Amino acid sequence: MPVVKIEMWEGRTKEQKAELARVITEALVRIAKTSPEHVHIIFEDVKKENWAIGGVLSSDL
Amino acid sequence: MPVVKIEMWEGRTKEQKAELARVITEALVRIAKTSPEHVHIIFEDVKKENWAIGGVLSSDL
Amino acid sequence: MPVVKIEMWEGRTKEQKAELARVITEALVRIAKTSPEHVHIIFEDVKKENWAIGGVLSSDL
Amino acid sequence: MPVVKIEMWEGRTKEQKAELARVITEALVRIAKTSPEHVHIIFEDVKKENWAIGGVLSSDL
Amino acid sequence: MPVVKIEMWEGRTKEQKAELARVITEALVRIAKTSPEHVHIIFEDVKKENWAIGGVLSSDL
Amino acid sequence: MPVVKIEMWEGRTKEQKAELARVITEALVRIAKTSPEHVHIIFEDVKKENWAIGGVLSSDL
Repeated sequence: MPVVKIEMWEGRTKEQKAELARVITEALVRIAKTSPEHVHIIFEDVKKENWAIGGVLSSDL
Repeated sequence: MPVVKIEMWEGRTKEQKAELARVITEALVRIAKTSPEHVHIIFEDVKKENWAIGGVLSSDL
Repeated sequence: MPVVKIEMWEGRTKEQKAELARVITEALVRIAKTSPEHVHIIFEDVKKENWAIGGVLSSDL
Repeated sequence: MPVVKIEMWEGRTKEQKAELARVITEALVRIAKTSPEHVHIIFEDVKKENWAIGGVLSSDL
Repeated sequence: MPVVKIEMWEGRTKEQKAELARVITEALVRIAKTSPEHVHIIFEDVKKENWAIGGVLSSDL
Repeated sequence: MPVVKIEMWEGRTKEQKAELARVITEALVRIAKTSPEHVHIIFEDVKKENWAIGGVLSSDL
């Protein structure tokens, strides 16, 4: 049943997402006692110009 | 006042979204006693490679 | 696969949520061609003092 | 520590987002007593056909 | 039309939220050219034990 | 920079959350090449009556 939403700057490859999905799902199964088929992980690729830190768009840092 | 966020795999047409919006808004008005102009529904089209189930990206299933 | 998040002012009963869940899931199955067991609907009850419209907390309207 | 997510119709320029980020971060620092480097603001540009109000997609209004 | 979600550690008062809502709505109206009655701001008070930074729950920092 | 939101049924202990936060942050640092202090993980404990699967509230399953 867990739903995990991961927001990151765009640029992560499909291989990185696949490995993250595998490892995070294993952690949820082992630690939170859920079954793997109930774990949904959604990646959201955020453009740097859409993410501000400290009041400045990351594309301007 | 309700805000509804619907995350689905990409591929749903504009017609499908329009019908979903209509039906879900009617349900919220009838069941949750709100007025239609206060119902916001936001669709988010998620690429299959950005959605993992059971630890595997849906694009690899 | 759809994940639906519904944010509403608190106060909706369990019966209202149950009916909303049933109707919205049916709509997603019929219109978006998914199977019911893949539809997750998450309700979030928001206190009026945590929801502002027009710059004013709803608890102050 | 605050994380702010702003969903708007697409079309806002980078300059508008930069100014929003600056002003909202200043408000959070001044009013919520946080330090600027801990404020994350994420913009999400939503297509009008993905945002329904009153049961109608905004692209059809 | 903008929907703003603000996640912060719990502890902010109703007065702080009211001022944040007023200032952020004004910024959205002035900079993003929307009308105030369309601005929704939702605050989410997050317990420190539900927010990890650097791999450590904030309640343990 | 990643922000991770984890929605689960309530009932997970503080110890489980602490271990999940540690393991998921390590995975993000190793696989997504970020630094640990930039990883924010937010847990949201959802009541079973607020989470429907297959059109039925989990509290009624």
